[in-house]
Amino acid sequence: MGLTVVGSIALDTVETSAGKNADGLGGAATYFALAASHYTQVHLVGVVGDDFPQEHIDLLGAKGIDIEGLERVEGKTFRWSGRYHDNINARDTLDTQLNVFEHFKPELPEAAKNAKYLFLGNIHPSLQLEVLRQARPEFVALDTMNLWIDTTRKELEEALAKIDCLIINDEEIFELTGERNLVRGVHKIQDMGPSIVAPKKGQHGCLLFVKNKIFSAPAFPMAEVIDPTGAGDTFAGGFMGYIAQQDSVDYDTLKRAVIHGSVVASYTCEEFSVDRIALVTQEDIDRRFDAFVDLSRF
Amino acid sequence: MGLTVVGSIALDTVETSAGKNADGLGGAATYFALAASHYTQVHLVGVVGDDFPQEHIDLLGAKGIDIEGLERVEGKTFRWSGRYHDNINARDTLDTQLNVFEHFKPELPEAAKNAKYLFLGNIHPSLQLEVLRQARPEFVALDTMNLWIDTTRKELEEALAKIDCLIINDEEIFELTGERNLVRGVHKIQDMGPSIVAPKKGQHGCLLFVKNKIFSAPAFPMAEVIDPTGAGDTFAGGFMGYIAQQDSVDYDTLKRAVIHGSVVASYTCEEFSVDRIALVTQEDIDRRFDAFVDLSRF
Repeated sequence: MGLTVVGSIALDTVETSAGKNADGLGGAATYFALAASHYTQVHLVGVVGDDFPQEHIDLLGAKGIDIEGLERVEGKTFRWSGRYHDNINARDTLDTQLNVFEHFKPELPEAAKNAKYLFLGNIHPSLQLEVLRQARPEFVALDTMNLWIDTTRKELEEALAKIDCLIINDEEIFELTGERNLVRGVHKIQDMGPSIVAPKKGQHGCLLFVKNKIFSAPAFPMAEVIDPTGAGDTFAGGFMGYIAQQDSVDYDTLKRAVIHGSVVASYTCEEFSVDRIALVTQEDIDRRFDAFVDLSRF
Repeated sequence: MGLTVVGSIALDTVETSAGKNADGLGGAATYFALAASHYTQVHLVGVVGDDFPQEHIDLLGAKGIDIEGLERVEGKTFRWSGRYHDNINARDTLDTQLNVFEHFKPELPEAAKNAKYLFLGNIHPSLQLEVLRQARPEFVALDTMNLWIDTTRKELEEALAKIDCLIINDEEIFELTGERNLVRGVHKIQDMGPSIVAPKKGQHGCLLFVKNKIFSAPAFPMAEVIDPTGAGDTFAGGFMGYIAQQDSVDYDTLKRAVIHGSVVASYTCEEFSVDRIALVTQEDIDRRFDAFVDLSRF
């Protein structure tokens, strides 16, 4: 079947109360691909500069991720730097250097075009639309952010009309719809296109709206969060990866996909950068999936 | 078995985006008792002034609540006034008049003393300790607030050492323990006394820690919240009421008790004051319990 992801690949410098990690492998598409690679064949489409360490490319390759669509161009890789508060659920961005990502024009190789499942990472909506023109997926999910909601609403709405599933931070629902009530906000989003909406709530878990049904998944309670960077992108990777693996979008599959997304997201928080998610085993996934059952069954 | 609750009875004036409701029946013990009355015999201990409408007393009586411990004294009833933000999860207190509640000295009638289950509502910890001296319960839960954490820590810690279960807002865990991580904070609270801790997270649901086990209950997604005042107290009433009804504190019962608390709390939010919770039927409870199963099962 296969799953294509288009999005950012970055080098992140992150400070949390646990310490500082400089120039770690990051970016939404990276976290997504590493998570999804546990479930299905992933085609990664993105761009890096000539400063991008070969070891990171080797890691992606070792995970069986198809990197034919990973462009390597002259210049510096996208860099992001942030510092988390003592309350690890809040952070400040210290620096963003788009570098080669600023002129990213996704060109999908044949295999990426033909994947049945497609995830449009958080990039300019006009690029998301361009990917939709190139690809032939049967099921498309999309992520976005405040910047695009505020500055490129027309293109974003055009993209939303063409997709099946929106994965979004809960606080962005108000910005997108003007609705402070999450349920009503999601209904407005469903009217814009996607019948499936997954509002991510960070340490409070994730909801899943499928037409008129609602599922609520807990977050995994963690006594120590080292670095939550990429948790939302990892969630999306586990969610879409499981869907592609099962090759189904029925409601029961979608609910379990949310749990798998939550499982891998929890691992991402256990170390800086992709240090933990890159090492996750099938046994780790199975064990934590069972823990989610225990956490929510009554 | 029976369940005794000691706490505030109030007349609330509340503004939300849905409108304004003046001098509505309120107070933690009121919401608690009305919720718990669906499950078990409730003994209500509190104080009201001579301005307290007879119709409210009639309502409590009609629900089968034992009001022998409801003192009626000269003066005005405790009044609270608040205004909710457009984001209904935040509010400002406009006015608090303790009135007769300021000199409340709980005196438990025999039936209240003999109840097997006791809930110490959010009052001065020295009063909570006084109630513990009078009563002979087998299982005690307690609620508190920032004010007591900040100003009467010694008495609060003395009370915590004597109880089985703490029901607390999640943001108060940091103030009580200095721990920003919720899991570690709960472990510190468990070291202070209660083996059971239920952190309430408002629109994000509720967690339940029982020794080293964790359960996560969702909140009921609501397209319209009219007035969330008393939702937390209603939660506690459904939680303790169900425990008393089942006469068990095993883990499965405690988990279902959290769901029952969440069920009745969701009804409280549907109207101002106690207007909805007072009308809830067994069928309403059963139907929404089933909805919680659908919401969280995968």
